[in-house]
Amino acid sequence: LNNGMFVQVRRMLHQFPPEDVALILESSPQSERKSLWQLTDAEQQGEILEELNEDARDSILALMDTENLVAATEGMDTDDLAYVLGGLNDSEYQDVLAQMDAQDRQRLEQALSYPEDTAGSVMNTDTITLRPDVSVDVVLRYLRLKGDIPAGTDALYVLNKNDELLGEVPLASLLTCDPAASVAEVMNHNAESIPVGMEDSEVAKIFERRDLISAPVVDDHNKLLGRITIDDVVDIIREDADHTMMGMAGMDDDEDTFAPVLKSTKRRTIWLTVNLGAALLAASVSNMFEATISEIATLAILMTIVPSMGGIAGNQTLALVIRGLAVGHIGDSNAKTLIWKEVAIGLLNGFIWALLVAVAVVIWKGDVNIGYVIAGAMFINLSIAGLAGVSIPLLMKKFNIDPALAGGMALTTITDVVGLFSFLGMATIFLRA
Amino acid sequence: LNNGMFVQVRRMLHQFPPEDVALILESSPQSERKSLWQLTDAEQQGEILEELNEDARDSILALMDTENLVAATEGMDTDDLAYVLGGLNDSEYQDVLAQMDAQDRQRLEQALSYPEDTAGSVMNTDTITLRPDVSVDVVLRYLRLKGDIPAGTDALYVLNKNDELLGEVPLASLLTCDPAASVAEVMNHNAESIPVGMEDSEVAKIFERRDLISAPVVDDHNKLLGRITIDDVVDIIREDADHTMMGMAGMDDDEDTFAPVLKSTKRRTIWLTVNLGAALLAASVSNMFEATISEIATLAILMTIVPSMGGIAGNQTLALVIRGLAVGHIGDSNAKTLIWKEVAIGLLNGFIWALLVAVAVVIWKGDVNIGYVIAGAMFINLSIAGLAGVSIPLLMKKFNIDPALAGGMALTTITDVVGLFSFLGMATIFLRA
Repeated sequence: LNNGMFVQVRRMLHQFPPEDVALILESSPQSERKSLWQLTDAEQQGEILEELNEDARDSILALMDTENLVAATEGMDTDDLAYVLGGLNDSEYQDVLAQMDAQDRQRLEQALSYPEDTAGSVMNTDTITLRPDVSVDVVLRYLRLKGDIPAGTDALYVLNKNDELLGEVPLASLLTCDPAASVAEVMNHNAESIPVGMEDSEVAKIFERRDLISAPVVDDHNKLLGRITIDDVVDIIREDADHTMMGMAGMDDDEDTFAPVLKSTKRRTIWLTVNLGAALLAASVSNMFEATISEIATLAILMTIVPSMGGIAGNQTLALVIRGLAVGHIGDSNAKTLIWKEVAIGLLNGFIWALLVAVAVVIWKGDVNIGYVIAGAMFINLSIAGLAGVSIPLLMKKFNIDPALAGGMALTTITDVVGLFSFLGMATIFLRA
Repeated sequence: LNNGMFVQVRRMLHQFPPEDVALILESSPQSERKSLWQLTDAEQQGEILEELNEDARDSILALMDTENLVAATEGMDTDDLAYVLGGLNDSEYQDVLAQMDAQDRQRLEQALSYPEDTAGSVMNTDTITLRPDVSVDVVLRYLRLKGDIPAGTDALYVLNKNDELLGEVPLASLLTCDPAASVAEVMNHNAESIPVGMEDSEVAKIFERRDLISAPVVDDHNKLLGRITIDDVVDIIREDADHTMMGMAGMDDDEDTFAPVLKSTKRRTIWLTVNLGAALLAASVSNMFEATISEIATLAILMTIVPSMGGIAGNQTLALVIRGLAVGHIGDSNAKTLIWKEVAIGLLNGFIWALLVAVAVVIWKGDVNIGYVIAGAMFINLSIAGLAGVSIPLLMKKFNIDPALAGGMALTTITDVVGLFSFLGMATIFLRA
């Protein structure tokens, strides 16, 4: 980004829609982000902030003073406001709050009162509501007078005098029905309404299954609080998927692709620490058999094969079960069937790979007895891998631990320990002179 | 499912919407699926088939004869029809085709003419189109006469006499604008149109970024061919995410949670075979150092630690890069920055973990020289892990290989081989008498 291009880049950034500018910022190394941000359109900065991922948002927030931030967030949707200000520390947040006008402050406090990852935290409050007794013609005139319908609106909500949700009128119905009809006559009574405390991943499942574009959010007494739109649901689905995928590799899904080296290194420490523990545990299993290994060095060479195959087979089952839990295929009634199925696959896999590996090892090392030992260990480890791959995520789910985060490490530890113990243990029994 | 519950289950299945029946079928073991399917509402069977995942669809198709199938698929949307019949083998497909009426057959052949995973293969043809010169009032009367707007419609498309797309009129605009205005006056000229050959994951990115609900699909000459709706895009996002997550664990994302044991075992063979090759390669590296290992048995006990840490560190980088590629953060211009960043993290990680592991090993084994060796090997392997974790997916992407499928295995092979080679190699040089 040299001086000659300055004006050009500035013009470009001003022309792009905010979501594209956000993508450019996310795709830029830390050092360039600062210069790019200063070239963005001040009017757009609020919308750009909304679109950034958490890490990128935080790096930009660090560049802004309170005044800028208050200006940028003026008139923002409550859910977006909550997201943007979520990146501030407490004292910064209080500063911004103090400079906001009373109405915005109240809306923000309302939005922040809902727990994270619930329907309340992702809903908007820009609903259009109707009374059941007015005629469609009146509604049409009202809309024309209003002159604007919020983005993502596919239905208007019908409320009684107590603000309780009675149903919804799709925009499409307004266009096709008889204008003389009343709202009560044309409304859909079976509108899928979302309880405000529902987990956001549940909300996403409902949207997916029912092909919804928006849905009303209600409290315990069926009072309308706001609505959730499909664009927020798409974000939830993407984030959940990211979370699972990154989590399985021991990464925080908020990690920015271009985060600073020190910050990234620190974030990746936990998983490496846990793995060092697991690796030392496996080493201590081998250590129990030091005498055997020092007598037969071939064992040391072959001892990594059984744990490795067990890890792969177990992870295959684990991925299937994690996906099944996420999609909602697996419940109490069919868990047993699934366990039997995966154990059966484990046994069959165990048999097949015991045979193949034994043949390979006998050909390589010319020792039939080692073949027997590795076959036995492989059979045991792949059977256990199947059982562990299905029962670990089911157990974790029971105890409210996310299987995508901890499942893989727990599984690999088990297959490593069982694989080494069965291989070296049987070798000690059968091969030592 | 005993006899007494027969009538009850039947009634329940008839009351549920098709997407719920599909979920119940997917969540049922093979043996129960057949009985459940026979209790479903014949009128709903087409819609249920649309909603099933591939494996479950195939298991149900196997239960249906041609006549049933033709009846179930009558009047289906082309994209759904293509999906359902995609599960048939050639001769079954020809049978169904022969029994279809000419119009349906033509629509189906049209839909199947677009390559899989492109915009053409997911689009619907149920668009409502307008001419630019008519007035909004005429459009409103036309819609009222038509009486029905296809689900997922948020805009009508404006075409010229050659069926070329000029723009779109959102339903919301029809409700708010002056009825005397012409379509040309109220239409949005900047409608985001999708080229028919665009990859479906690209389509999903555009929908996500622009918060679209539907978008017109056009051919090379800007002629309108159909439209894509957000519900199909949500399916694409979910499938892509599934594909990545399952693929990283060496699983086919089409695999049914309750697939038969033999079928599942067969499907999982490829990955286990590849892994056996990798494990044997690693073993053959250890084999090169057999003399050293037989002299110092402690090496065998410690030799799994370095590869294990390298695998985890490399996989963290790999996951970050795969996500970055999927989201579109990484291009040619910033690849170098990313490589440097991950290599820097690798070097820093290498330094930290070399120190920690060396301290742990020296305390455990009381041998300072082994501490030096494992520290050196750890530093080398974690640096290489960082480099491999970022360069493997970038290279695979260049050669059009999906890094989510093959990346993890390639990476682990490298970290295993480098880890063993550096640890045992340095031990051979420095520790042997």
